[in-house]
Amino acid sequence: MAQDTNRITTSSHELAEQLGMSSAQIRKDLSHFGEFGKQGTGYHIRYLIERLSEILNLTQEWPIALVGAGFLGHALASYRGFETRGFRINWVFDSDPAAIGETIGDLVVQNIDELEETIERHQTRIAILAVPASEAQAMTDRLVRCGIRAILNYAPISLSAPADVHISYSDPVVQLQQMTYYLQGNIEAQA
Amino acid sequence: MAQDTNRITTSSHELAEQLGMSSAQIRKDLSHFGEFGKQGTGYHIRYLIERLSEILNLTQEWPIALVGAGFLGHALASYRGFETRGFRINWVFDSDPAAIGETIGDLVVQNIDELEETIERHQTRIAILAVPASEAQAMTDRLVRCGIRAILNYAPISLSAPADVHISYSDPVVQLQQMTYYLQGNIEAQA
Repeated sequence: MAQDTNRITTSSHELAEQLGMSSAQIRKDLSHFGEFGKQGTGYHIRYLIERLSEILNLTQEWPIALVGAGFLGHALASYRGFETRGFRINWVFDSDPAAIGETIGDLVVQNIDELEETIERHQTRIAILAVPASEAQAMTDRLVRCGIRAILNYAPISLSAPADVHISYSDPVVQLQQMTYYLQGNIEAQA
Repeated sequence: MAQDTNRITTSSHELAEQLGMSSAQIRKDLSHFGEFGKQGTGYHIRYLIERLSEILNLTQEWPIALVGAGFLGHALASYRGFETRGFRINWVFDSDPAAIGETIGDLVVQNIDELEETIERHQTRIAILAVPASEAQAMTDRLVRCGIRAILNYAPISLSAPADVHISYSDPVVQLQQMTYYLQGNIEAQA
């Protein structure tokens, strides 16, 4: 979205429009974490960003271990969206001898055999899983055993993990399904 | 998740556990679309799948135009998760002469110049955007002009589009942020 960097305040209505939510939901969500603004004066943008960063634990930079250096792994390792948003992929692992040693940006693909030692030494808590579905559960088990507590999974398979491990799924089909529900209505409305 | 394919019924509690939602939310969501089961007897699995497929407009196969044949485009064009779930990437476009004509599975990367004619001829309604952030808005404008009504965007940028165009964002950082909120609490609880 186009940003006017000289702006000082924003409103729940403006945020709602940009986020595709209702302004009531925005006010309700923020109210869970205390006072962010007074009615009629709006939110101070810089204060809002600082407080939200604290709440989401983004005042530190989280190191990430990426497992899988195929096309998707390459795309993630080259992704510009991590920068300045609190995350950094520090390690990339693969089991394919042809991939090991390859350079992706600043990163060198490491042998998957070094996974446990690397994660334990750096006390890494977050991993991104970009491996085939057939390998995803076994890799999840290895990640959990060496201390990973949050996994972003791109493989099209549901993973089992202990309750204290957070798993998030990136599934294009789920997102497409959410849109086709509205799409048909749209087509019918035009007919 | 492990599935027993001989099972005939399931419950809102079982669905809730697998989906990470409350059973009350599942019952409430389903109730918007009519009767799915009687209290105490659970849901007939096959009937539930059929009705949900109808509601989500998944009884047809939706063709998709993929824009961008870089690493991410390759990963998406090779993604196994579309199969049997109602979607098929039928066309891949890129502007890079080195990519045009390349084969990805059954697909041949087409010149981006053919985008409009291809989408209009096949009355395609869904596109996946896997281009750099700097190109995403211009490409969105082109897609909207030739009839695309749903865009799944992987570029780390918010897009502007008319109100009748549905845009969904695939952003790993948003998903990671949702997990770090819980992660810190976890670490503190262990300390």
